[in-house]
Amino acid sequence: MIISMKPDARREEIEYVCERIREYGYKVHSIQGEQRVVIGAVGVGDVTACLESLEALPYVEKAVRISAPYKFVSKEFNPGRTVISFDGLTIGGEEFVMMAGPCSIENERQIMETATAVAEAGALVLRGGAFKPRTSPYDFQGLEREGLKLLAKAREATGLAIITEVMSDRDVDLVAEYADVLQIGARNMQNFALLKTLGKCGRPVLLKRGMSSTIKELLMSAEYVVAHGNPNVILCERGIRTFETATRNTCDIAAVSVLNELTHLPVVLDPSHATGKRSLVPPLARAGVAIGADGLLVECHPCPEKAVSDGAQSLDIAQFRQMMRDLQPYLELWRASRIPEPAAV
Amino acid sequence: MIISMKPDARREEIEYVCERIREYGYKVHSIQGEQRVVIGAVGVGDVTACLESLEALPYVEKAVRISAPYKFVSKEFNPGRTVISFDGLTIGGEEFVMMAGPCSIENERQIMETATAVAEAGALVLRGGAFKPRTSPYDFQGLEREGLKLLAKAREATGLAIITEVMSDRDVDLVAEYADVLQIGARNMQNFALLKTLGKCGRPVLLKRGMSSTIKELLMSAEYVVAHGNPNVILCERGIRTFETATRNTCDIAAVSVLNELTHLPVVLDPSHATGKRSLVPPLARAGVAIGADGLLVECHPCPEKAVSDGAQSLDIAQFRQMMRDLQPYLELWRASRIPEPAAV
Amino acid sequence: MIISMKPDARREEIEYVCERIREYGYKVHSIQGEQRVVIGAVGVGDVTACLESLEALPYVEKAVRISAPYKFVSKEFNPGRTVISFDGLTIGGEEFVMMAGPCSIENERQIMETATAVAEAGALVLRGGAFKPRTSPYDFQGLEREGLKLLAKAREATGLAIITEVMSDRDVDLVAEYADVLQIGARNMQNFALLKTLGKCGRPVLLKRGMSSTIKELLMSAEYVVAHGNPNVILCERGIRTFETATRNTCDIAAVSVLNELTHLPVVLDPSHATGKRSLVPPLARAGVAIGADGLLVECHPCPEKAVSDGAQSLDIAQFRQMMRDLQPYLELWRASRIPEPAAV
Amino acid sequence: MIISMKPDARREEIEYVCERIREYGYKVHSIQGEQRVVIGAVGVGDVTACLESLEALPYVEKAVRISAPYKFVSKEFNPGRTVISFDGLTIGGEEFVMMAGPCSIENERQIMETATAVAEAGALVLRGGAFKPRTSPYDFQGLEREGLKLLAKAREATGLAIITEVMSDRDVDLVAEYADVLQIGARNMQNFALLKTLGKCGRPVLLKRGMSSTIKELLMSAEYVVAHGNPNVILCERGIRTFETATRNTCDIAAVSVLNELTHLPVVLDPSHATGKRSLVPPLARAGVAIGADGLLVECHPCPEKAVSDGAQSLDIAQFRQMMRDLQPYLELWRASRIPEPAAV
Repeated sequence: MIISMKPDARREEIEYVCERIREYGYKVHSIQGEQRVVIGAVGVGDVTACLESLEALPYVEKAVRISAPYKFVSKEFNPGRTVISFDGLTIGGEEFVMMAGPCSIENERQIMETATAVAEAGALVLRGGAFKPRTSPYDFQGLEREGLKLLAKAREATGLAIITEVMSDRDVDLVAEYADVLQIGARNMQNFALLKTLGKCGRPVLLKRGMSSTIKELLMSAEYVVAHGNPNVILCERGIRTFETATRNTCDIAAVSVLNELTHLPVVLDPSHATGKRSLVPPLARAGVAIGADGLLVECHPCPEKAVSDGAQSLDIAQFRQMMRDLQPYLELWRASRIPEPAAV
Repeated sequence: MIISMKPDARREEIEYVCERIREYGYKVHSIQGEQRVVIGAVGVGDVTACLESLEALPYVEKAVRISAPYKFVSKEFNPGRTVISFDGLTIGGEEFVMMAGPCSIENERQIMETATAVAEAGALVLRGGAFKPRTSPYDFQGLEREGLKLLAKAREATGLAIITEVMSDRDVDLVAEYADVLQIGARNMQNFALLKTLGKCGRPVLLKRGMSSTIKELLMSAEYVVAHGNPNVILCERGIRTFETATRNTCDIAAVSVLNELTHLPVVLDPSHATGKRSLVPPLARAGVAIGADGLLVECHPCPEKAVSDGAQSLDIAQFRQMMRDLQPYLELWRASRIPEPAAV
Repeated sequence: MIISMKPDARREEIEYVCERIREYGYKVHSIQGEQRVVIGAVGVGDVTACLESLEALPYVEKAVRISAPYKFVSKEFNPGRTVISFDGLTIGGEEFVMMAGPCSIENERQIMETATAVAEAGALVLRGGAFKPRTSPYDFQGLEREGLKLLAKAREATGLAIITEVMSDRDVDLVAEYADVLQIGARNMQNFALLKTLGKCGRPVLLKRGMSSTIKELLMSAEYVVAHGNPNVILCERGIRTFETATRNTCDIAAVSVLNELTHLPVVLDPSHATGKRSLVPPLARAGVAIGADGLLVECHPCPEKAVSDGAQSLDIAQFRQMMRDLQPYLELWRASRIPEPAAV
Repeated sequence: MIISMKPDARREEIEYVCERIREYGYKVHSIQGEQRVVIGAVGVGDVTACLESLEALPYVEKAVRISAPYKFVSKEFNPGRTVISFDGLTIGGEEFVMMAGPCSIENERQIMETATAVAEAGALVLRGGAFKPRTSPYDFQGLEREGLKLLAKAREATGLAIITEVMSDRDVDLVAEYADVLQIGARNMQNFALLKTLGKCGRPVLLKRGMSSTIKELLMSAEYVVAHGNPNVILCERGIRTFETATRNTCDIAAVSVLNELTHLPVVLDPSHATGKRSLVPPLARAGVAIGADGLLVECHPCPEKAVSDGAQSLDIAQFRQMMRDLQPYLELWRASRIPEPAAV
């Protein structure tokens, strides 16, 4: 922690700040600058409380933490990569994981047709929403348990693993019964009651970045899940909210690289929500592979213009196949970058 | 709904769009412009599904809804003002409601001291967090049930009404047992499971705007609560997230006026979270009264530099008193603007 | 300056950083923390160059400046208020300055009619654009010199002072010939060639905040003008660009208070551009007076629905008069807050 | 244009709106919806003025333009690609153009060393700033004419083409004397006086997107240059300003694809300014190639930790070489996507 005092802070005010810092369990180093005193606090203590309380003092200009606020998810804790296994797959390692499927599960025919098609085209995981977070109470809210059962059927038929969203801590057990990976939507990234429950769910969790959440906040939310007992968290960049309206969100693609520097957890990209527009999905998918994401989450529907939700951003099946074909050379470069070079003889 | 076709859309594509619109239950009016065809859809149907599915078509340029997506909360539904009563108070009418108290309930002495002081200074409602949404799992998470009991004690001692946050649908019944008003935090504005439960909670709800939520989304979340049975929703502007870092958030004060044009629900302002800085709270409180908010939500702590959370933005008791005194002439102007002029004899 | 090293920085890397800091003319204080070394640099030197160059080193985590990057415009340089005089008025002191007029000067009749009306209603300054920054090359670009002449005529007829925009360093002399105050639009806030020329223009300058500029950047742009010789800069909050589209911009009203804490320069608010919507202007104007702005900049047009630009946000003359009447009690409170209390006898 | 009336608009108000629309030269089609009347305006007229003036009417809810506000830069005007030639190169066609060099030209040795190295590594264009837009008046402002001469020397020695920034319409002729391409910085994207002058400069222009400019505004600024006589405009995505502070800006990489759908002009990416951090440049460069940018603009300096500006985001020479090697397989895929398939025999 670094605390900079106001230029006109008096000696006894500086001393009071030093005392308060010591009370929180830190050692104090103070530096007399040209214009002001700057105090360094060294040690281990309740950083947030200390920072916020010091900033309450009128003669303190700013209090800044130096160490990262997360621990288990940091590269400092684990400088390698976390490889998560489920249903015979791994993510975070040498396997690139394409997850695809409709926004909402609508009926058996739709989900089976999509599952078969995306499996054939090379997807490893089937996505599909049974519980749907909808902005309007009047929009389709999902098939709930019925939808979960259809996902299970599709898994049986195709061998695909299943990822689906859970929206409330009440439903975690139910969803964990059917899904291989539990998805947390952007709007729930800071639903802390839900995050705590996920710590105990026994399944990998895919955590989507909130639409106005910083990378640091995303890592803090992952830290909630890990600190409550579940180390298997996959992070997902899905676009953030900015002033630009040409796309549904603004894909912060560099976040993939920033996360790779800060954390050992796998990172995937969702080009469908990031753009909101079908024609933009394939080029952004290419960019996601090139920048080194561990997988992609792509919306695909047999007949997007009849979808109950997200039709505008869903690929149809022919388009999905075409995208998979076009990605192949990029995936080969991706794999070459992941496979450790053989040791020289 | 207005659907504009791409300039090069062919006759049969336009016809297909018209058919799809009719299937959704609308009548079709098409206009041949200089460059493109624009289609108006008139009637009542499933707007969202229709819009999203039409946008999936490659020859559709854009599909825009004209009517508002909310109903019960709109001025068109109720052109007057909703006045909400609780614990002998009203909000939304002729009474300006100051709500004040600490960020977190820390112990009996702290909450009683604050309650007594803010009551004397003119506050009508005591705020205080028992369940705390914290970015970090390592920060203080609140006293939970114990905190609720302390709030009840403070109500008994001071006569103040109680507002406190609920974070999960699991806790709604518990919190509703103690609180007069249930507060929904910014991070939970689109926790739809929670919103649905609030529809049945039997208490007024104060809904904070999400930090990157549009005004329209705030109204949609209020619509969730109302559509599920609870018409008593108070809206709260508490600052949005922007690029500016000089303040914790950016107070979108004009949102108060925008909301007053769009909805009949009461609107309050939280100058503490909007700025994150104690010295900015009193001037912003004045602006909030002047622009016509129905009340304010202000953080106040007997000793901010020892607070476990939000110390930097909390007023101490002397500062709160001073702010209340300074607000008096503005509150008089506010009241004059609310009291209906007597009919001429 | 505080430089924090990466946790795994080696001794010789730390030593190299210290050396580089000393080369820039600073003294070095280093603090050994639990996880990393933090270095304080004390003294006077080329801060920006030093910061940026240190951040280029792979073993440096972050380099942060502590002192403000501006000097002349800061409260530390002048703890009082700068009161700027022009044409018999003052701004920044005991006089509240209402500036009003059309977006564009269209013709003699329009500008004379507006000038007469706003003068009668209590405005002190006439605004009106002769050089118009328009997003599209096909939109009306202003009457240029002809417009300036009409402004001069209006000043003669009404006694109002004149404020008008200048868009290029080439036109500064021309505009300064006619205007009492030179306005710099949001899009030119970081047109540094223009800012330098304004340092020599001999007229007060009203500098609008760029639509995505931080408060600090606004102050840095003001510093350009002052450092190049012109101390008479008025700052203007006119809304920033955010994700919210219900208003044209998002009025960062708290910026008025933040600026009052950081600088001695006068600060005004433009509720017309901040909202883009006529009905929102009067309530936001009230809030602006209440929060302590030194003046307002309001668009007003005799017939907004025939205006060549900004009709949607212009008040008509009756509305302007009404707003002025409604502001009176707030202006009285404003004046009471500015007039120094008489010393007790 | 589509004008939607308020639900309670009266017949004569609707009639007045129709009249006003006809005055602007449009034909009127009105649609009676369930709740409101919607009016379509068909034809050619002064759209902006008409829209803004109609929105001034209290009984008009919204007025929306349907056709794009730009013309020459649109795909509708030219459905192909504009290929721009300069100094023996082309951009926008089958050649991928790497532009590299230091942020600022500092001295002869620095620029010659960089030029030689980037040329050897495969760059085709040398970048380097002689006129520097700096936030602070106290930061290094560039070598100006002296810097331009050094660029010319470097061109002679290496055969690289030259790109450099121009900041004021006053300097356009001077810069055009030395540079092959004139760069317009993000802060000047809406410096309309400058844009008009560039229409006559006789050189290709690289126009950087403003940090809070929409894609549409970027196209409108390009339209300014083209409409004033210069069809050779290269667009550049360099990151936009958002709430995220982990990177200097947020790279809106999808904007490359959006622009490719809307315009025939070449589009390049600047991964250095988009991230502000050296280690993020190579992965983002890969993504930029993969998504289909026509070139990259990368900062490179022989000794970034001694650079006078932007050291933190500059690659050193070894890193630049490494990045170029790593890009090769991606550039091959890029070229394959650009070269037209041979016609079947």
